[in-house]
Amino acid sequence: MTEETSLCDMSALSLRRLLLAKEVSPVELLTACHQRIDAVNPAVNAIVAEDRAAALAAAKQAEAAILRGETQAPLLGLPIGIKDLNETAGLRTTFGSPAFAEHVPAKDDAFVATVRAAGGIIAAKTNTPEFGAGANTTNAVYGTTANPYDTALTCGGSSGGSAVALATGMLPLAGGSDLGGSLRTPAAYCGIVGYRATPGLVPTARKAMGWSPLWTEGPMARSLGDLLLFLSAIAGEDRRDPLSGFTEGAAFGGLRPASLEGVKVAVSEDLGAAPVSQAVRRLFRQRCAALGEIVDCREANPALGEQDRCFEVLRAVGFLGELKSLVERSPALVGPNVTANVKLGLTFSAVDVAEALVAQTALYHRFLAFMEDYDLLVCPVASVQPFDKAQLFPTEIDGQPLATYISWVAITYVLTLTGHPVLVLPCGLDENGLPFGLQFVGRKGRDRELLRLGLALEEALAKETLLSRSLPDIAGLHR
Amino acid sequence: MTEETSLCDMSALSLRRLLLAKEVSPVELLTACHQRIDAVNPAVNAIVAEDRAAALAAAKQAEAAILRGETQAPLLGLPIGIKDLNETAGLRTTFGSPAFAEHVPAKDDAFVATVRAAGGIIAAKTNTPEFGAGANTTNAVYGTTANPYDTALTCGGSSGGSAVALATGMLPLAGGSDLGGSLRTPAAYCGIVGYRATPGLVPTARKAMGWSPLWTEGPMARSLGDLLLFLSAIAGEDRRDPLSGFTEGAAFGGLRPASLEGVKVAVSEDLGAAPVSQAVRRLFRQRCAALGEIVDCREANPALGEQDRCFEVLRAVGFLGELKSLVERSPALVGPNVTANVKLGLTFSAVDVAEALVAQTALYHRFLAFMEDYDLLVCPVASVQPFDKAQLFPTEIDGQPLATYISWVAITYVLTLTGHPVLVLPCGLDENGLPFGLQFVGRKGRDRELLRLGLALEEALAKETLLSRSLPDIAGLHR
Repeated sequence: MTEETSLCDMSALSLRRLLLAKEVSPVELLTACHQRIDAVNPAVNAIVAEDRAAALAAAKQAEAAILRGETQAPLLGLPIGIKDLNETAGLRTTFGSPAFAEHVPAKDDAFVATVRAAGGIIAAKTNTPEFGAGANTTNAVYGTTANPYDTALTCGGSSGGSAVALATGMLPLAGGSDLGGSLRTPAAYCGIVGYRATPGLVPTARKAMGWSPLWTEGPMARSLGDLLLFLSAIAGEDRRDPLSGFTEGAAFGGLRPASLEGVKVAVSEDLGAAPVSQAVRRLFRQRCAALGEIVDCREANPALGEQDRCFEVLRAVGFLGELKSLVERSPALVGPNVTANVKLGLTFSAVDVAEALVAQTALYHRFLAFMEDYDLLVCPVASVQPFDKAQLFPTEIDGQPLATYISWVAITYVLTLTGHPVLVLPCGLDENGLPFGLQFVGRKGRDRELLRLGLALEEALAKETLLSRSLPDIAGLHR
Repeated sequence: MTEETSLCDMSALSLRRLLLAKEVSPVELLTACHQRIDAVNPAVNAIVAEDRAAALAAAKQAEAAILRGETQAPLLGLPIGIKDLNETAGLRTTFGSPAFAEHVPAKDDAFVATVRAAGGIIAAKTNTPEFGAGANTTNAVYGTTANPYDTALTCGGSSGGSAVALATGMLPLAGGSDLGGSLRTPAAYCGIVGYRATPGLVPTARKAMGWSPLWTEGPMARSLGDLLLFLSAIAGEDRRDPLSGFTEGAAFGGLRPASLEGVKVAVSEDLGAAPVSQAVRRLFRQRCAALGEIVDCREANPALGEQDRCFEVLRAVGFLGELKSLVERSPALVGPNVTANVKLGLTFSAVDVAEALVAQTALYHRFLAFMEDYDLLVCPVASVQPFDKAQLFPTEIDGQPLATYISWVAITYVLTLTGHPVLVLPCGLDENGLPFGLQFVGRKGRDRELLRLGLALEEALAKETLLSRSLPDIAGLHR
């Protein structure tokens, strides 16, 4: 193991300390990432676009800032992965769509501009399904991203490229986004941490439908401590997101673990609503047995309601708003998931939308009432463990056919509808050596509370052998 | 003029001081209000339901609390008017609809519960058009509410009963709600103050579509100081409103006027988009000439976009969600405005809704960019001065026919779409002795800033003879 590869396996927090102490330079760190990418990426296809010269120039600027003692920027000199749904100035941005295969934006979008302003090095674009539609990271521009724990399997999606880049140490931090579970499923499948914040906490200036709480952007990292460093840079007020409040991002940098004394956790295998495989239920029960040693766990399911129809309609409305014109203009350039969503949307009336909006609000109120009795709700992240990457989505679970191509992610999209924040923590490997993750749901708008509990849980769970994390054994990195 | 009537004409702030100093008892104050209601209400029909025995019992409790020295509750002992869209425990609540003509709720809704918990005496229900639909306060249950400055004319709507109750001193504070201008138009027509806050600041737990920023509840009062007292009681966090943030309501109680030094005001006769009569334009220019003596005013119109279609579609979606089933179940019990909105909604597709949501967000972004250059935008509240109360809405302005029955309130509903806070301040009378009001728009989420500027403007404008406020000469009160 060379010195460069060991930098790649260090936490972002440690790297920040080394950078500020001038023990490692941003250029060295970036070079180590480049070497890791060269070694690993051919096997996983997570990194899809880079401008190494531009990144190197930015790293040199960060180096100069550190030498001048200007070290306030929280991500200073850290190479960051950007999901290929975010526009990056001068760096190819395809949205996973052949229609944008050669698109090189003139400007950063708001998320990227924030990362850059926080000192982050825009190191690489990470793969995503076309326009983020789908929970298997594959598209006609770049192909399929593989799970580093078994490259025959999917890494999940749609933030799959970011999750894999993190799991394999190609980058210390990466961004994701989440509508139906896109930050969460790949985090679980790759053994990393992902955070779907209360909508607005990480402002998302580029939503076509500003007041919708469904689609969010957010941080991914290898540990919760690293994730909080990232969050401190991207959380905060930006009125271009109508849901943005006034939370100071910096407050997340210094969070300390909460006490687990008296903490009440609702444990739910399936939220009383989502299809979940027997294998996942078994893994979940094992983990919860360990969790029950740490906190007061009680089995409880929230009563939700018409979540499937509600999500189907509201998701389709989103596709109509953003992609109907592209589907009509260039049908040959648009893949099956997007086309199907737009076509589905065309069958709905305003009454369908009104009923879905009312149903979502009713579901929100029921979930809010449920959470009055608990500090956390814990449930699985994915209904099945990672599957063949050539398969777009599971069509059945344990022999039971699934209603739609997104049915298998109901366990994540139901939580999207609740508007509550969800933290995904990795919880060791299954019997096939594949990562397993848990969703921890906190109170709406109480993100700090959830993250402080998360820090305490991460610490406590790390002590349990069953829940230890391990890096994937890929491309000879960890022999 | 008796002692009782003079209590009715005092500010809520003064009354609070007298109550806490035990110089006036809550029972005395309530009795004075009852006498005023008996004297004035027959002429204006603003108060539509009362339970005087229950109110008296509450006033006695408030009295006891004051005698015990428990005086924290901000509304302690103040009689409050509640719009008849809010459910009040044990007190008839009709929503202005024959379908609910005999409805007596078992429970307070969240707004009323908040007012009651803040020590307010639920003194009376105030009239509203059926389900708040329409800007003329008239319905088949209670009839029409008259403008106290000329009882042949409309008081505006839909919070018309509250505005009239305040203008005539029947109550010191009253609640309203606003979708297309319902807090604002009646405030302007009755010479009082109304506030449409940034959505979520005054949490609205009973929205059928929780994330919609269109419909809000809020305070109405005779002066901004009084309004802030009310706001301090009803602003704050309530997670049952998904848009609710963490603002402490109490912070509004102690607001002080801001400096007007360097304040930049954009002056717009019609937002570049709304039909506005020549008479109102003339009044507006007169007021702005006075305003220009106080602050730096520049004529400027925001570029908005497809605001009419956008509002029409989103408003109809709201009606579909809340009232479609009633219209289908009991068509004979539903009036023309509600029926027309539901019927209109039935003609829209999900594509129409998606396009409206995208248009609203685009409009929001344009308005946000516009407001970067100004501290305030000022424009008229209503396109025409108060009209015949027998007319449901103006069908033309200066001979130009209006496209729809809500076209005449475009100047208020356009601002609804922007999601920005709007303060209505009364600005004297027109040549016919009718009140004229101005909308002051502040920065989104910067409600304190807007209200502090409002305090300074109210003070400054009061010094200008042109802008002085006067109470209506009705039922011999101010001879």
